[in-house]
Amino acid sequence: MEDVKIPRATAKRLPLYYRYLVFLNDEGKEKVSSTELSEAVQVDSASIRRDFSYFGALGKRGYGYDVKRLLDFFKKILNQDTLTNVALVGVGNMGHALLNYNFKRTNNIRISAAFDVNAEITGKIMNGVPVYHTEDLKKQLSEQQIEIAILAVPKDQAQSTADELIEAGIKGIMNFTPIRISTPSNVRVQNVDLATELQTLIYFLEQDNQ
Amino acid sequence: MEDVKIPRATAKRLPLYYRYLVFLNDEGKEKVSSTELSEAVQVDSASIRRDFSYFGALGKRGYGYDVKRLLDFFKKILNQDTLTNVALVGVGNMGHALLNYNFKRTNNIRISAAFDVNAEITGKIMNGVPVYHTEDLKKQLSEQQIEIAILAVPKDQAQSTADELIEAGIKGIMNFTPIRISTPSNVRVQNVDLATELQTLIYFLEQDNQ
Repeated sequence: MEDVKIPRATAKRLPLYYRYLVFLNDEGKEKVSSTELSEAVQVDSASIRRDFSYFGALGKRGYGYDVKRLLDFFKKILNQDTLTNVALVGVGNMGHALLNYNFKRTNNIRISAAFDVNAEITGKIMNGVPVYHTEDLKKQLSEQQIEIAILAVPKDQAQSTADELIEAGIKGIMNFTPIRISTPSNVRVQNVDLATELQTLIYFLEQDNQ
Repeated sequence: MEDVKIPRATAKRLPLYYRYLVFLNDEGKEKVSSTELSEAVQVDSASIRRDFSYFGALGKRGYGYDVKRLLDFFKKILNQDTLTNVALVGVGNMGHALLNYNFKRTNNIRISAAFDVNAEITGKIMNGVPVYHTEDLKKQLSEQQIEIAILAVPKDQAQSTADELIEAGIKGIMNFTPIRISTPSNVRVQNVDLATELQTLIYFLEQDNQ
């Protein structure tokens, strides 16, 4: 199982499945069909069956999927037993919203350190998270063994901060800046570009209207 | 050209291409190769060529693409000449960050109305945007002919607010809540689920480490 190579699109749907299974399990439900799953997570049932097939036959025809078994399975895949600490770099408006964002909801993720240059907030604890000065980035990331960072700095500092993060041993960056940062091939970047998301939505609406 | 049906993955890359072309044009560059484009937007050049092929042959082998021509072309496709007004529903931490987010940067999008129930902010103007009470949602959206909304309310209000938005004539929703809202088939939803994005990044990092 550890060697399964799954498509990126499938990987992106795993947390969705997981979250809904947590919900079903909490409700005491024991079985779920791909149709029900499909409606809840808004993914067509053919894709769900194909996604699940990458991990071996987990469901029985006419019976559906066993909620507890699926849940244990996804928990393992998604490493939900281990808390993942991430760093937040840049505590402006967006950074502040991210500090308040509940990543722990069903995912075992926690922002455990934040960094900024603003003297009004460095050295303080915000939302339970210590805000360090960016000059302590390398030291803190190394001491806290943090490998994942959320980049929410102003765009003119995006690349230089990313470079520092990589030098400090960061292996994954969730990039909130509009800049496409360049990184070595062993560093993963997940871009969250809100203007692009909105533009895509508008584009599809215009297509619908034609 | 208006009838071109392009894959969703291609459509999602259009705003990226557009933004980089704006940058090149501002820099006075006249030509760009698919390799240069590829490095800048971090999309492999085969995908770029395939994406562009949906719109007809826009480049010449060995010459590259004409920046101004491409720019005009994408501007038209992305309807960048028209300002798109969108509504923000829910001005909590994330909503506040979104009010400060520069959607206009290179995309012609503007949050022109915000809605909340908090008496401390309703009736005021925040970041140049009037904040109305949510009870005025229908009236304002209709008067301002807004068809796109960003949903950033608490999760227990996600579905009911989405229902109100749809009743008010909204055709596209950028959903910042962790809830997968149900909508009629003529309403487009773009989910921005930050916990899932981060979880996906972590998943891939773990795969890399194996």
